[in-house]
Parts: sequence; structure tokens; C-alpha cells
Amino acid sequence: MSGPHDAAGPLRVVAFGGGHGLSASLRALRLLRGQWSAGRQRRELEVTAVVTVGDDGGSSGRLRAERGGLPPGDLRQALVALADADDPTADLTARLFQHRFDGNGQLSGHPVGNLTLLGLMELMGDPVDALDHAARLLGCCGRVLPMSRHAVSLEADVLGGDPARPDDVVAVRGQHAVAVTRGEVRRVRLLPERPVACAEALAAVEAADWLIFGPGSWFTSVIPHLLVPDLAAAVSNSRAKRLVTLNLAAEKETSGLSLPDHLAALARYLPGLRFDVVLADGKAVGDPEPVHRAAESLGARLSLAPVAVPDGSPRHDPAALAAALEAVLGPP
Amino acid sequence: MSGPHDAAGPLRVVAFGGGHGLSASLRALRLLRGQWSAGRQRRELEVTAVVTVGDDGGSSGRLRAERGGLPPGDLRQALVALADADDPTADLTARLFQHRFDGNGQLSGHPVGNLTLLGLMELMGDPVDALDHAARLLGCCGRVLPMSRHAVSLEADVLGGDPARPDDVVAVRGQHAVAVTRGEVRRVRLLPERPVACAEALAAVEAADWLIFGPGSWFTSVIPHLLVPDLAAAVSNSRAKRLVTLNLAAEKETSGLSLPDHLAALARYLPGLRFDVVLADGKAVGDPEPVHRAAESLGARLSLAPVAVPDGSPRHDPAALAAALEAVLGPP
Repeated sequence: MSGPHDAAGPLRVVAFGGGHGLSASLRALRLLRGQWSAGRQRRELEVTAVVTVGDDGGSSGRLRAERGGLPPGDLRQALVALADADDPTADLTARLFQHRFDGNGQLSGHPVGNLTLLGLMELMGDPVDALDHAARLLGCCGRVLPMSRHAVSLEADVLGGDPARPDDVVAVRGQHAVAVTRGEVRRVRLLPERPVACAEALAAVEAADWLIFGPGSWFTSVIPHLLVPDLAAAVSNSRAKRLVTLNLAAEKETSGLSLPDHLAALARYLPGLRFDVVLADGKAVGDPEPVHRAAESLGARLSLAPVAVPDGSPRHDPAALAAALEAVLGPP
Repeated sequence: MSGPHDAAGPLRVVAFGGGHGLSASLRALRLLRGQWSAGRQRRELEVTAVVTVGDDGGSSGRLRAERGGLPPGDLRQALVALADADDPTADLTARLFQHRFDGNGQLSGHPVGNLTLLGLMELMGDPVDALDHAARLLGCCGRVLPMSRHAVSLEADVLGGDPARPDDVVAVRGQHAVAVTRGEVRRVRLLPERPVACAEALAAVEAADWLIFGPGSWFTSVIPHLLVPDLAAAVSNSRAKRLVTLNLAAEKETSGLSLPDHLAALARYLPGLRFDVVLADGKAVGDPEPVHRAAESLGARLSLAPVAVPDGSPRHDPAALAAALEAVLGPP
């Protein structure tokens, strides 16, 4: 019998995030999983994605406003990232999930997968059941869970959040508004303040060997997980090792934030939390010394690896990130 | 090697129709197929549905008006009727296809399957490819094809089609308007008048052992197939036997039409077409003599069987219809 944390059993990884950043992590983990299962020394990689539920922009925002329920967009992205690209039916279904109705009619802007997930959640009544069914349709190599079964709203105190009062800290309400603010985000919080964590996500954290935070929109996709009390406690109490993957470029919401500031923000929202590894791209880091020191202050070593796509744009390359992750997680 | 019309090969059945009536046929054929494949004398039943593409009402009408393409509703119904009810994943996906968004927002009234089919047709560019993929998702035990790759409009000359002029024959435009008219439908036609038949539907008719017409809305779901020139020619030229399953009750569009009139209408739209069997429910028929004579005039024998649901409502019972179909098609 092999149980959790048993070297002979599967390696259990939980990745936290929201949109594109989480997708990058999941695509890398899917590749690594394929390599491990095809390699001489087989070891199973068990992947669970835990996804924020605060989106109120775009298609997700419209669906949430019209019909309630969880915003489906980030959940869809995570499912598609884990979909079986080698199975033609699953791959086509994944492309269908991503197909966005164009034009300017009532459906315009909605990806088919958002409508599918919305319908599944309404039909089944439980978002986790709905996500598990969608994962079967897509042949996903892992599970996608919401951080909470109930949607949340995000609010931030932002210096210059009101362009007319650049020196004042004002409250900016809504994940989309926070993500695109030109001010400096001072603090984010959830509404309701203490959402109930998804029980399956807590169990996955409890059983995990590794917890992975980032890359992604720091205040709107990474930090929100630490604001769900039971999830934060599970992260703190987990025996799993903890990895932070840093971003390749600043986003609007973090335009005033250096990479060391990103790490400091994690410590601020969950004081006392220790990490094991900080993974970053050498080019994005520049002088490694400040990041090195920031990592050390969290108890982590800094691992530098080329993880960006070759064309120079600030996107993670799944294969490169998979190789960097393998160097961190260890060979099978 | 077993080819078409070989008794040792599969029995190939093509069912023509539109909405609920076609679904009843297909559910019965799915049951019969299951019985045959589980029975001692195994024989494969190969089912193809050929579906009208003139719907302009409800969700299909809205989607067609907003985004063009084929109206998906009748295609969805046919797919769901052939879906694998014994496979939990396929069965759940079928229920998802049928889940209709309620309320009064932008999505309200759309079944998820209509949006899925619309997205698939847009993504793949070809409706037959899209339907084949949907059939895989639903584990369908047969193929669903449109009668044409291009949507058509239906128009009818209707006596009293304008309530203000009850004695005049007026043109009523649109399948939905024809289906709910209180006047007497004198003649229906398609616009464009000579739509191109779906090549795969022609091939299925060519290879078929049996062609099944009805039950269903006579003028809007059954007759339209005979108005597609190449499809009508394929039906006429096919070596297949031909079965008509009559309705259990009159609908609005056929309120002035007796069951013999239904049979006469087929002959009127495709003169010279001969049939082999007319299947009807004894209770719905009442005095069988007029129906018997009408069947004979088409070259067909009348087969009476109890095919309605037990509660007395005018709906076909899939198991009863399967038994009646087996009596007609012959044992495996």
C-alpha cells in the first residue's frame, strides 16, 4: 500500500491560481506527467488545480450577473490546460470549449465552454460534480476545483485608484477593476470576508506533496487563495513542500511591484508561511541578489531557469517550465 | 463480405423527420438495436436520422437569426434520442444538451445542446463533422444528418391563414407560423425551392434496407424531405422498403387532416412513390377501413399495433414502438 508522501506512490501536486498563469503551470505539469508515465522510471503525477472564483469581467462577469453561480472562465481555462491533447475527440472538445462566439449579438464574447460549465453547474447543482464531468469530457489528466463553491467579490485599497485623486487610497471594487487599475494596490480583501473553502480542495492540499503558487496576476489570482481562511490554514498546516513560480513581467495591477515585493506580499497575507523553492526566469530577474534575499526570508532557495517562450514575449513555455519543474520536484 | 441488402450484414434503417416524432422513432430504434445486439441471434441495426433544417421558432429561430447556420434544435433532439443511456457520462452529457436556461436573460430559452452544436458547427465549418463529434460525446448508436447543409425556409398556402380573411388562401411564411396556423394547409414549399441535399444523407438512403417516415408534424417535419429534389429522387430510387408511421393525434397544422389524408399528402408531394407498410395505433385509427384503403393505394399493407404510452396521452411509447417496428422489420 502506498499512501500520501510515500516516495513509491504518486507525486501529488496542487497548483493555485486563476487565469493564464495557472494554465501555464498546468500545461507544464501535464507535459511532465506524460514524460514520467512514458519514461523508464514510471511515477504517477497527480495534479489538482485550485482556482479563484472572483472574476467579474468579460463573459464570466456577464454570466455571473445574469445567472449567478461561479464565474466559469478561469475554471474552463484550467480544464483546457489539463485536457488530453493526444486524444482527437478530447482535443476537439477542448477547442470547442475555447471557441468564443464573435460578433455583437446576445451570445457574442461567450466561449462555448463557459456556457457548457454554466449549464452543467445548473443541471448538477454542485460545481465540483460539474467540473468532474467536464474533466471527463476533456480527458483531463487531473482535477480542477474551485477555491470555494460560492463566488466571491474582490476589493482593493488602491493608491491613486481614482485618477482624479492620485494621492488618495480609495477602495476599488471588483476583480476586473482591480486587475486593470493604474493605481498601486495596497491591500486586497474578499467579500464575503470569510468564504467557505471547497472541501475537496482542502483534502487535496492535505494530501499534497507540493503546493505551487503562481505564476499569475498576483493580487487577483494568487493571493485570493490565502484570503480563504480554511484554505490558508490548510496551506500552512500541510506537510507539502511549497513552490512559488514568479511572473515574467509586471501586470497592470502589479506595475509598482518588484519580484521581491511579490514574495513579500505572500508573507504579508499569510504571515509565517514558509516556502521551499522560488522559481524564476533568469532574464526576468536581472540582478538575482534582491530576489535571492527575498526568497531566503521566506525560507526558500531561488531556482533560476529559462522558462519563457523563445520569442521574448512574457509567456511561460510549457516545455521549458516542465523541465524547470522537474528540476525542482525531483526526477520520478 | 457482407454488403448492403445482405441478410447476414447489418440492417440499415434511415428515419426521416424533425422534432418529437423523429425522437420517438429513434428511441424505439435504439431500444431495438440494444435488444438485437444482446439477443441470441445477433444482428446489427445501423440507424441514420435525416433531419429537417427549416425550424425558425424558439431557441433555434433566435440562433439562426442571430448567427446563421443550421437551426440546431431538431438535430439536438435526434442526437439525444440516440444517446447511450447506459453510459453514465454520455447520459449526463445528453441531459446537459437538454438543459434549457430558464429566466428571462440573454441565454434564457436556449438548451445547452443548441449552443454546443452552434459552436461546433462554427468551429468545424461543416455541420456533418460537427454532428459526428456531438454523436461521439453522446455515445450515439447511430448517425444524425441534416437533410441539407444549408438552412431552408418553409412557406405554405393556407386556407384561413389570415384569421381576418377566413375564406381566402394566403401564404404563411416560416416553419413555426405554419406549424401553429389555425387555417387549413393546402400546400407547403421550401425556400430556396431546390436546396442541395446532404450527400451523406443521399448515401445513407442509397444503402438503406428500410426508410421510415413519421411520426411527426406532417407538413413541417415529414413532407419537407420530399421537397429536396435529390433526396426525393434517392428515396424514389432506393431499393429499400418504406414504412410510414402515422401520428397518434392531429396537430394544429394538420387539424383538418384525417389519417388517410396524411397518406394522400405523401403521394401528392412525391407522386408514384410506393410504400410497403403503414404502421398505426389501433385506437388512434378507429375504423381501420379508410386507413387500410389509403395504405393500399400506396401499395402498402396496414399494420396495427398498440404504440401509444399507457396513460392515454398521444405520445409513442419507445418500447411499444420498438416491438411494433420489430414486427415490421422482421426478427434479427
